[in-house]
Amino acid sequence: VGELDEVLALTWGDGASSGPSEFGAVGVARGHLGEGWLIGHAINGGVLMALGASAAASGLASVGHPDLLTWGAHFLSAAPAGPVEVRVEVLRVGRTVSTAEIRVVQQGDDGRSHERVRMTGTFGTLDRAEPVHRAPAPPEVPGPDSCLPATRDSSPLAAVIAVLDRLDARIDPSTAGFAVGRPTGRGVIRAWLRMRDGREPDAAMLPYAVDALMPVSFDLGAPGWAPTMELTGQNLGRPAPGWLLLEMTTDTVVGDLLVEDVCVWDSTGRLVARSRQLAGVRLPGS
Amino acid sequence: VGELDEVLALTWGDGASSGPSEFGAVGVARGHLGEGWLIGHAINGGVLMALGASAAASGLASVGHPDLLTWGAHFLSAAPAGPVEVRVEVLRVGRTVSTAEIRVVQQGDDGRSHERVRMTGTFGTLDRAEPVHRAPAPPEVPGPDSCLPATRDSSPLAAVIAVLDRLDARIDPSTAGFAVGRPTGRGVIRAWLRMRDGREPDAAMLPYAVDALMPVSFDLGAPGWAPTMELTGQNLGRPAPGWLLLEMTTDTVVGDLLVEDVCVWDSTGRLVARSRQLAGVRLPGS
Repeated sequence: VGELDEVLALTWGDGASSGPSEFGAVGVARGHLGEGWLIGHAINGGVLMALGASAAASGLASVGHPDLLTWGAHFLSAAPAGPVEVRVEVLRVGRTVSTAEIRVVQQGDDGRSHERVRMTGTFGTLDRAEPVHRAPAPPEVPGPDSCLPATRDSSPLAAVIAVLDRLDARIDPSTAGFAVGRPTGRGVIRAWLRMRDGREPDAAMLPYAVDALMPVSFDLGAPGWAPTMELTGQNLGRPAPGWLLLEMTTDTVVGDLLVEDVCVWDSTGRLVARSRQLAGVRLPGS
Repeated sequence: VGELDEVLALTWGDGASSGPSEFGAVGVARGHLGEGWLIGHAINGGVLMALGASAAASGLASVGHPDLLTWGAHFLSAAPAGPVEVRVEVLRVGRTVSTAEIRVVQQGDDGRSHERVRMTGTFGTLDRAEPVHRAPAPPEVPGPDSCLPATRDSSPLAAVIAVLDRLDARIDPSTAGFAVGRPTGRGVIRAWLRMRDGREPDAAMLPYAVDALMPVSFDLGAPGWAPTMELTGQNLGRPAPGWLLLEMTTDTVVGDLLVEDVCVWDSTGRLVARSRQLAGVRLPGS
């Protein structure tokens, strides 16, 4: 069992084995966020999204909708490592898709509940995502062995990114200038990604993958993290085993608002997920 | 007062004049959806989004966050014309942005509440969206007078689209082949848009604008409506008076799932909003 599986292995409360599957039903699943998923002092937002989606999907599998198709997530507060609850409310059960609202919640030291992420997700089956009629082709990127590994010793910023011990991320050299103080300014970062523990990619991990790496604003010379206000994603296919290829781009920056797009292809070159987020950014000199 | 203003003019319950503005507060606003906003038997989804956003924005104006910045909407059931409630829960009040959950609800003939749309929105001020550092440029489109008006008498499908009486929509002739049975297959539709009642565009109407026109799947030869599962949008600037220019595109269709992107520019050529939705589609021959 891989490390991400441990996070996603939630236990449902009240003796239920698989969570809520009826319209209006609310279920609570419990798990633990390990320190290995920290970026600085906060758990990676992608882990929280994958956790929330996994909880709802396990409940909706019994109505034939085991796969997340599209989701939106608003990030409300930073999540420290520790116990976590996922509260799932089923908003709609339809013939081909069902919709759930998901709240990722932690108890604070003050004994109160603190919501970390509010998500809504539409679930169905990715069997329907065949065949591919049209999709963006993967960019030309040198193979993983010809790319630059992102490791914790590569910079002071990277040193606090605990997840880099779990991820094998290889940055396309033509987009890696940011790591040595020479961002290209184009707003493009590409990277290969896989888990170090040998876990093969699946649809459940795609909400994690789209938010696993550095913000594209690094390539615009903006230092520091770009806080996500809202992220929406679509799962568009089941990934084949092997490396995932990510491309992060931005074509829209207005004031201190950045729109970041991510595409994820599997090892066969199939587009398997996309995301778009609105994030805050401070460009150099502004 | 324009017709869209009448929809957006909600009355808050419990004597409150401006809705909830504190963390955890829940408020209910009431309004009426007129038959003029119908597409077939259902109120246009964009009207529901603009209505929900307007309710939350009016509540959050008192904390300095009067503008919707980004939102996600899951469509749960079709809304007939008639009374409507908007339930707003404030999830977070921050320094620069606040987040609210919004439920658009109607009472059914059975006396029960039926939720139509579940939204989450992040609100702030569009003052921060200056200057434009980068944004997609508007496409070259002939002026409105050289484009094709979309009217109810243009096709049997259009005949049931009551909103066409309120919208002045002019389709770029190079993307209007779908109207005469000759879709281009490229997956692009462009159009000028304004309200017939003379209302000038503003940020509050942008969630309506992004979903006001036909699905881009018309240009792929797919007949009929493409039901939206989830739509996410970003407001990126305050529109200047005059026509809005919309471009609807799709670069991703897998099985019966379609990703549609919309960009909206104002009369000065500034990008003011974007949206992306996942919708169901049945391509011809599949």
